[in-house]
Amino acid sequence: MFPFKYYAPTRVLFGRDTELRVAEMIQLFGGKKVLIHYGRGSVLRSGLMQRVTDTLEAAGIDYVMLGGAVPNPRLSLVYKGIELCKAEGVDFLLAVGGGSAIDSAKAIGYGVYNGGDVWDFYDRKRVAAGCLPLGVILTLSATGSEMSDSSVITKEEGLIKRGYSSDYGRAKFAIMNPELTMTLPDYQTACGCADIMMHTMERYFSGSGTMQLTDAIAEGLLRTVMENAEILLRDPNNYDARAEVMWAGSLSHNGLTGCGSDGGDWMTHKLEHELGGLYDVAHGAGLTAIWGSWARYVYRDCLPRFRKFAVNVMNVEPTGTDEAIALKGIEATETFFRRIHMPTNLRELGVNPTEAELADMARKCAMGVGGAKGSARLLHEADMLAIYRASL
Amino acid sequence: MFPFKYYAPTRVLFGRDTELRVAEMIQLFGGKKVLIHYGRGSVLRSGLMQRVTDTLEAAGIDYVMLGGAVPNPRLSLVYKGIELCKAEGVDFLLAVGGGSAIDSAKAIGYGVYNGGDVWDFYDRKRVAAGCLPLGVILTLSATGSEMSDSSVITKEEGLIKRGYSSDYGRAKFAIMNPELTMTLPDYQTACGCADIMMHTMERYFSGSGTMQLTDAIAEGLLRTVMENAEILLRDPNNYDARAEVMWAGSLSHNGLTGCGSDGGDWMTHKLEHELGGLYDVAHGAGLTAIWGSWARYVYRDCLPRFRKFAVNVMNVEPTGTDEAIALKGIEATETFFRRIHMPTNLRELGVNPTEAELADMARKCAMGVGGAKGSARLLHEADMLAIYRASL
Repeated sequence: MFPFKYYAPTRVLFGRDTELRVAEMIQLFGGKKVLIHYGRGSVLRSGLMQRVTDTLEAAGIDYVMLGGAVPNPRLSLVYKGIELCKAEGVDFLLAVGGGSAIDSAKAIGYGVYNGGDVWDFYDRKRVAAGCLPLGVILTLSATGSEMSDSSVITKEEGLIKRGYSSDYGRAKFAIMNPELTMTLPDYQTACGCADIMMHTMERYFSGSGTMQLTDAIAEGLLRTVMENAEILLRDPNNYDARAEVMWAGSLSHNGLTGCGSDGGDWMTHKLEHELGGLYDVAHGAGLTAIWGSWARYVYRDCLPRFRKFAVNVMNVEPTGTDEAIALKGIEATETFFRRIHMPTNLRELGVNPTEAELADMARKCAMGVGGAKGSARLLHEADMLAIYRASL
Repeated sequence: MFPFKYYAPTRVLFGRDTELRVAEMIQLFGGKKVLIHYGRGSVLRSGLMQRVTDTLEAAGIDYVMLGGAVPNPRLSLVYKGIELCKAEGVDFLLAVGGGSAIDSAKAIGYGVYNGGDVWDFYDRKRVAAGCLPLGVILTLSATGSEMSDSSVITKEEGLIKRGYSSDYGRAKFAIMNPELTMTLPDYQTACGCADIMMHTMERYFSGSGTMQLTDAIAEGLLRTVMENAEILLRDPNNYDARAEVMWAGSLSHNGLTGCGSDGGDWMTHKLEHELGGLYDVAHGAGLTAIWGSWARYVYRDCLPRFRKFAVNVMNVEPTGTDEAIALKGIEATETFFRRIHMPTNLRELGVNPTEAELADMARKCAMGVGGAKGSARLLHEADMLAIYRASL
């Protein structure tokens, strides 16, 4: 087991009607003037925002609002949020939505707290010394950003998508009411389940080290998400299934599923980031479109773990060669992705990059990871290009 | 899934030599004058304390020391610690040891912060409004107190053992170096593994609700602890096995294994508390001595979960009636306890209470839980007495 640090201080309130406790939570952390940050308005239409602002007003908490966070959230909105916070004297951020609103809010928080150009953090030019305190009301189970230390922002100029991780960016509280996710379109629910799985799988497919408890947690989490993703396709209002997926989303990315690992692989995410920057596809769908090609490219270099994954997660019979078992596991994963209507290649994702675009993505991806990255197998630019080509 | 809150803010540093970072961690939380609280001197003899104090001195952190915390830690030492902290102006507590030192330090922290008689909290007469900040260097994997909100103290007068839980008592940091547990006697290692299992099982055997992810985590944790407990009997210096057990100990009791449950059962713990107060037995051994009798008394009222436990944790073949499967699971658990040399009744534990003493324990236990308690089955004083008798 590799040494690790684990720090997941977010206070979670989980269950029906927990959004009504938002004022109490903000007051616990001393918030007096709140920026409520949200996405494209579904939280207004659903009535959630009204309940939230009613609760804040009843508690005498002042607020301003900023909507417009989109999937692959944009740097320009972050800049706008930073200016708004400064102009209004905001001392607390409340993200109401999914990963887009949360990640955008984290970036706003870094910008307000640290001054200067917030893109510096995402561009690896500076390290944040703090962040405005942030709370979350979660409406989409996917990115795990509600408990994670990470955020991902896309710079419009050059369509560059970059992540930044810091413990300062961990939310003070996360309010999780599974009912709030019931109105999601099936496609978004499935994308979210795929994203949750991939956060766990990126950590699982590490090239070295042994992790028995962490593996058991990861495998249980993956089986739970798969079973409940299928239930939700048939029965979107199933509270318990929504709840299992929602809690899995937080645990998949708060650090728990990586304790004792070598840090994990993360190359499927890195490859998808370039795709998401260029095409603005749903993150979860981008991940499943890439994963199979990545897995087939690297599995021989990480055979024990691909075998373990096949048997313990995908229920593959442990007979035959390790290689055959591992391959069956990859196939079963892709079959599952198709069953929840997720793409397993770029064509199914609906994008058709030219060879020049593939080369450009590989170049930007290699640049973004400092040349080479990957634990299951170390990938250089040529490997990245080969995987992009295989995923067409 | 029942609503829940989850809050486990402790910063964990896990791995070899992490104790050398203790000064840095204390400074992170502003500690300037530290009370180092420990047990019966093994941390002095092992050289650990020298490394700790060298590290503090190099960082210019002032400290005083108080040893003497014993299993079932005593209220009199807590009072002594409170006076010492007040006299010396202590602003940070560092527990170096296992659950005894940590729980005793938590009680000292409540006493210093809140004033008045600290036993009031354990006696349910007051609620703490805070606690001195506390850090832990863990040397025994067992109670999970390094990440939990709970502490258990025994009042010598009347031999009353009571727990108190509050988020204020959660450690700011926990330093976990699995190597520090290698010198433990086999019996203590096994007692610790039993305690870790029981923290998970108390939450698992709840009479209502569904928890799929939480169950998968709990089942994986139990299988991991069982496998590594047996490895450690053969190979006490196995780092990875020590590491798996140590991390399992923290996760078993930080709240994770109870998310979405109805709160769990906890009656084995409550029954053992009276035993531990009266006979000063090792907590883990007291738990295994009681558990089988408790399980046979209640399993029919909680059949689905006893069945699931038998199949998913104890590898019982899922054939035959649910009752037969559940009973086989109970038998397999007791067989495992014996395999790691843990007692499965009071005789094997080495105590032989009179009927009057059994009645007294049942009376005190019922009083301690406010008359009746239990989720797998609600137990009253007569039920408690029946379980004590069955465990002779």
